Amino acid sequence: MGRVYNFSAGPAVLPEEVLREAAEEMMDYRGCGMSVMEMSHRSSMFQQIIDEAEADIRDLMNIPSNYKVLFMQGGASLQFSMVPLNFMKNGVADYIITGAWAKKAWQEAKKFGQANAIASSEDATFNYIPDCSDLPIDDNADYVYICENNTIYGTKFKTLPNTKGKDLVADVSSCFLSEPVDVEKYAYIYGGVQKNIGPAGVVIGIIREDLITDDVPAYTPNMLRFKTHADNGSMFNTPPCYGIYICGKVFKWLKKNGGLTAMKEANEKKAALLYDYLDSSNMFKGTVVPKDRSLMNVPFITGNKELDAKFIKESKEAGLENLKGHRSVGGMRASIYNAMPYEGVETLVKFMKEFEANNA
Amino acid sequence: MGRVYNFSAGPAVLPEEVLREAAEEMMDYRGCGMSVMEMSHRSSMFQQIIDEAEADIRDLMNIPSNYKVLFMQGGASLQFSMVPLNFMKNGVADYIITGAWAKKAWQEAKKFGQANAIASSEDATFNYIPDCSDLPIDDNADYVYICENNTIYGTKFKTLPNTKGKDLVADVSSCFLSEPVDVEKYAYIYGGVQKNIGPAGVVIGIIREDLITDDVPAYTPNMLRFKTHADNGSMFNTPPCYGIYICGKVFKWLKKNGGLTAMKEANEKKAALLYDYLDSSNMFKGTVVPKDRSLMNVPFITGNKELDAKFIKESKEAGLENLKGHRSVGGMRASIYNAMPYEGVETLVKFMKEFEANNA
Repeated sequence: MGRVYNFSAGPAVLPEEVLREAAEEMMDYRGCGMSVMEMSHRSSMFQQIIDEAEADIRDLMNIPSNYKVLFMQGGASLQFSMVPLNFMKNGVADYIITGAWAKKAWQEAKKFGQANAIASSEDATFNYIPDCSDLPIDDNADYVYICENNTIYGTKFKTLPNTKGKDLVADVSSCFLSEPVDVEKYAYIYGGVQKNIGPAGVVIGIIREDLITDDVPAYTPNMLRFKTHADNGSMFNTPPCYGIYICGKVFKWLKKNGGLTAMKEANEKKAALLYDYLDSSNMFKGTVVPKDRSLMNVPFITGNKELDAKFIKESKEAGLENLKGHRSVGGMRASIYNAMPYEGVETLVKFMKEFEANNA
Repeated sequence: MGRVYNFSAGPAVLPEEVLREAAEEMMDYRGCGMSVMEMSHRSSMFQQIIDEAEADIRDLMNIPSNYKVLFMQGGASLQFSMVPLNFMKNGVADYIITGAWAKKAWQEAKKFGQANAIASSEDATFNYIPDCSDLPIDDNADYVYICENNTIYGTKFKTLPNTKGKDLVADVSSCFLSEPVDVEKYAYIYGGVQKNIGPAGVVIGIIREDLITDDVPAYTPNMLRFKTHADNGSMFNTPPCYGIYICGKVFKWLKKNGGLTAMKEANEKKAALLYDYLDSSNMFKGTVVPKDRSLMNVPFITGNKELDAKFIKESKEAGLENLKGHRSVGGMRASIYNAMPYEGVETLVKFMKEFEANNA
């Protein structure tokens, strides 16, 4: 069997070219006689890998010089603790609840201070982004927190919230590098890489330098202080070297393919193909309020659970993998990250049309 | 250039067979049409990978059923916080300081309670293991902590300390799976895998079930509670899937090659070859008190810094990589983990003999 079209929400499809290179370099990275997995993180070879990865993501996102790039571990779930531990100086933060992950971040923050839920779309199973133009931002809020793209529900902030001058912190795990970003609008951007960039086990943080301080609660574990990572070039201890190496390859692939402007165009084109069909179909329909639709995660339903199950089974047989929706939402979901080719979405839409015709 | 002999202390040499298999499976894992890097951690395929990995390490270490196996992230450095946060019930713990890593663990523990340094070998640059037969164990100590094999200094506990009935916690990062272990002598065993098992970014913990409780300080981050990981089969959030997959392959390689009894024999044979030469050489000498010598990490010096530098340079040219000692100790160090073949140590000793003859 050849490669399938993999619509997984994460870990997710990676560029074939990147995987092929990694396979070729597995036994002997560029004549050094060892795999990147076997390489000391203190070696000049690995230093070059991490330095190039940082330079390339800086270039791709046009990251200003007063922001540091950190490579960390522990996933977004560890960030849920790190963010309040490091950024709550007044002990107050405002959270916008647009899904399960934002909610988990908010609940974790409550351990460390006053975390306010200032808006939520839970009333409609998170199928929209609340109006964030004039929220009751706390005067003492140290930051406003969002999950910018909601993987499970398929929503995305198309406009960033009006934080009324407060620092914005964003989990961008499922829209990382999917389009150009104005980094200066954020105090801290972070994401697990396992959706749009690389293998699970790496978190990338982009942090404004003035937020890197020693002013954290005394009980803050060393590894949960941003300063620990920033002061040591992300190598306070052994970093997830192989994952960083794969991320670096994806950065180079993105640059070669036109960077984030080209990615946005390609992602819009792919998403439009699928959303346009959903809007015209008599069988399938998208679950998200159109103005808030994600370019990355597209949930849809037939309205009939048996038909959904049949679709998932038959699509899998046709080489279209992981179209089952998240267990908390049901139905289907197609995640169409950067590495999903246009042909993958075309094949999916063709399959959906045939399925609709055959099951009308 | 072919494969070198890689004496790195970690990340370190992995079995060629494992790397070759990983390369072959990179584009298409066993006919599923995707890489393990691209696979949902909730898929049955990945569940099988992690289940087999757990079953195989249980088998290798003969882990009793009242111990859980956890796959985590963050390295030993994150464990330095997790151990006191989870295990300090009386707020007291005793640490045996046999190197930089034990010391870091002790310093971190002081954030969370009374951490006593009850023995130390720092007076002699950690080149021996203190007598631990009758230490002043605190009556209220929740646990006694050791770093069982000291990567930087090349020492190993040949006898576990007499904890006077207290729970023993051990960081075994650099001797993990190098010989049979009586798991029941420990309350908690953990190690980063990047020395003897797999790629950096995975920590394996083996924890006695009664230690997994909700009784932790309220400020303990969710991801730093062992219960979070234990209750969710190490998948509270996305685990470092690819690293776990490689560890699983190494477990199978170990089983195929006779398990830990055979590993111990092979490791003793390799180490004896090198130590015997060091003891007979007029130029090189080992730095560790013989009774405490590690089977895994063998530091040695000539006593002449220029000669050390010449040796490191020329050995590298001869395809013997990463023989430079840790920056805090100087000299040379050969790490000879499970995956280092006997021929690698033979080649090293042959090179050392020639170097000694040429530079006498």
